[in-house]
Amino acid sequence: MTLALKPRLPLAAAAATFAAAALPLLLRALHSRWRRRCILSHVASHRSIRKFLPRPVDESVLRQVLSTAMRSSNNGNMQTYSCIITQDKRKLEQLALIHDNSAIASAPVLLTFVSDWSRMTRWCHLRGATPGYDNFNAFLTGALDAMVAAQSAALCAEAASLGVCFLGSTIWEPARLNAFFSLPPHVHVVTSLMLGHPAEHPPLRARLPAAAHLHREAYVPMDDGALAAYYAAREVEGWARYERLYGGGWAEKLRAHRLENLAQVYATIKYSGRDFRVWSRRLAASLEAQGFGRNEAAEGDEAPCACCGKWSHCLDPERFGAADAAER
Amino acid sequence: MTLALKPRLPLAAAAATFAAAALPLLLRALHSRWRRRCILSHVASHRSIRKFLPRPVDESVLRQVLSTAMRSSNNGNMQTYSCIITQDKRKLEQLALIHDNSAIASAPVLLTFVSDWSRMTRWCHLRGATPGYDNFNAFLTGALDAMVAAQSAALCAEAASLGVCFLGSTIWEPARLNAFFSLPPHVHVVTSLMLGHPAEHPPLRARLPAAAHLHREAYVPMDDGALAAYYAAREVEGWARYERLYGGGWAEKLRAHRLENLAQVYATIKYSGRDFRVWSRRLAASLEAQGFGRNEAAEGDEAPCACCGKWSHCLDPERFGAADAAER
Ligand SMILES: Cc1cc2nc3c(=O)[nH]c(=O)nc-3n(C[C@H](O)[C@H](O)[C@H](O)COP(=O)(O)O)c2cc1C
Ligand SMILES: Cc1cc2nc3c(=O)[nH]c(=O)nc-3n(C[C@H](O)[C@H](O)[C@H](O)COP(=O)(O)O)c2cc1C
Repeated sequence: MTLALKPRLPLAAAAATFAAAALPLLLRALHSRWRRRCILSHVASHRSIRKFLPRPVDESVLRQVLSTAMRSSNNGNMQTYSCIITQDKRKLEQLALIHDNSAIASAPVLLTFVSDWSRMTRWCHLRGATPGYDNFNAFLTGALDAMVAAQSAALCAEAASLGVCFLGSTIWEPARLNAFFSLPPHVHVVTSLMLGHPAEHPPLRARLPAAAHLHREAYVPMDDGALAAYYAAREVEGWARYERLYGGGWAEKLRAHRLENLAQVYATIKYSGRDFRVWSRRLAASLEAQGFGRNEAAEGDEAPCACCGKWSHCLDPERFGAADAAER
Repeated sequence: MTLALKPRLPLAAAAATFAAAALPLLLRALHSRWRRRCILSHVASHRSIRKFLPRPVDESVLRQVLSTAMRSSNNGNMQTYSCIITQDKRKLEQLALIHDNSAIASAPVLLTFVSDWSRMTRWCHLRGATPGYDNFNAFLTGALDAMVAAQSAALCAEAASLGVCFLGSTIWEPARLNAFFSLPPHVHVVTSLMLGHPAEHPPLRARLPAAAHLHREAYVPMDDGALAAYYAAREVEGWARYERLYGGGWAEKLRAHRLENLAQVYATIKYSGRDFRVWSRRLAASLEAQGFGRNEAAEGDEAPCACCGKWSHCLDPERFGAADAAER
């Protein structure tokens, strides 16, 4: 275009002008392709690491990973989560006991992410505001933010050549862990991340086909045939993995519990209904104990805002019609 | 070292041998540095995008983002979450109404992540196993996994030059959204992600200093002075942001509600205790309605496993001594 508009410009100069204009665009396009490839291949090559070298994690790397992760999305920019860094050898050993997971004792770092409304609540008090963050919605909001930050931290740590492994056991012993970390009211554990230089290099672990996870426009339950097909490869891979991990005791364990397939192993031994129910009740109790149990309507909740007449300043129930205002 | 051991090797050949050995190491070190920089700077440059170009999201990019995100960590590799993709214009408009967020109507894609134990439960039934995933622990476990996948999807989408914004409103109208997506039992909404080509390029949004988030070995509550200092910059930035966003109506709103500072705006208008309590009760009801409410001990839960005598196959309470076995 520039060329067409300035026909008297000598050709060489025109070419140079064109190159000068095109080069940044080309470089930007290349950089953008390359960045996309870098990120996607990084996320795709994740594997959990459960064995660590005794080598410590560099303090500046740890700081950088954590402060970078805190740039991630968080609800309303309230940042209602925190992270507790454990590096003390004796503390790691105690945590290994609480989690019932010996790998923790050999990890140089354990990060414990907590849902944290203590900071926000205290700030409100300091500024003459009345915080209402002592309920289930508050806990869950902070917990979801904690996971966003934890996954960013995991990806950043892996980018710094560290190995990571999440620990679901964090919500199986919540009261013990809340006490262990001296969590004040309005703070509750959510998840943990072991961190260290990898002493193992496992292959990528299997996943169900992506289609099993994805739904278009509405949830479409699959039929039994499709379900069985999706799990077919997993049944073989998962079974072989346990045989490998448990060695000689595996056959004995299966016999004792009369287990014949991977689904039965999951439902009976790995994640039993009994355990899930115990953990559910413990969670309900520890949420209450940490000050997240005040869900009932408080005085004044039965009437709309005295200042503007709205039932909610955030979601307006009247957008669906009058019936909803009453429903509150 | 090679040089010292083979003194008769001509110098040029030795140098070549050395270079051949060193080059891959050097390249690997460079690649690793470069990857680390790429990932960390990518995570650090995130900003939520709420305005989108009408340009659709390329189908192959969407697929790649989602299947890559599904390589992320997930509890016990059970993959107990799913993702519902909304692209239908009319559906997006309805969702904008339910979320009370008009930006959704102009986003080409909305991803809704759900905690999903339906697949796992049906697989168990198909294989003669007895699933116990109809409780709070199951919902929360799937919800935490959903957030890990959602954050990976967010980072991958951003790497593909898309803009994203999470929606906390997903858990404010859970029953409506569960119905909207026809979620079967043992499936419940968790979070949503708007996705599209950015039509805005906002600056990085403020964060509290990283130190406000981080604790060493145990949670150390900060004193009021430190707290005020941490929030000082936020109070100015957040206030200016609302003035900019709300324009003329802002001063009026403040006067009507007698609000004097940012903390009061949060606690009274943005995230009021009344709203949080309503949302808490709605969540409790929708969890129950979706089949996640069976937390009481079931028949057989009061005795240890008949096969092996353990109370839990996953966490062994006896590791703390006999008192705990009874505590279950
Ligand atoms: C779980 C979650 C829920 C969110 N909900 C909303 C929302 O409903 N509406 C919105 O505009 N932004 C929402 N956000 C985005 C935050 O407002 C945003 O991440 C935060 O203000 C920080 O800004 P940044 O992401 O641009 O750094 C949410 C973020 C998260 C992680
Ligand atoms: C929330 C969460 C909790 C987890 N809990 C544990 C755990 O307690 N112990 C463990 O060894 N791995 C745990 N993992 C790691 C998963 O087992 C692992 O991500 C999954 O098996 C897939 O393997 P991969 O991460 O190597 O791809 C957890 C992962 C997540 C996301």
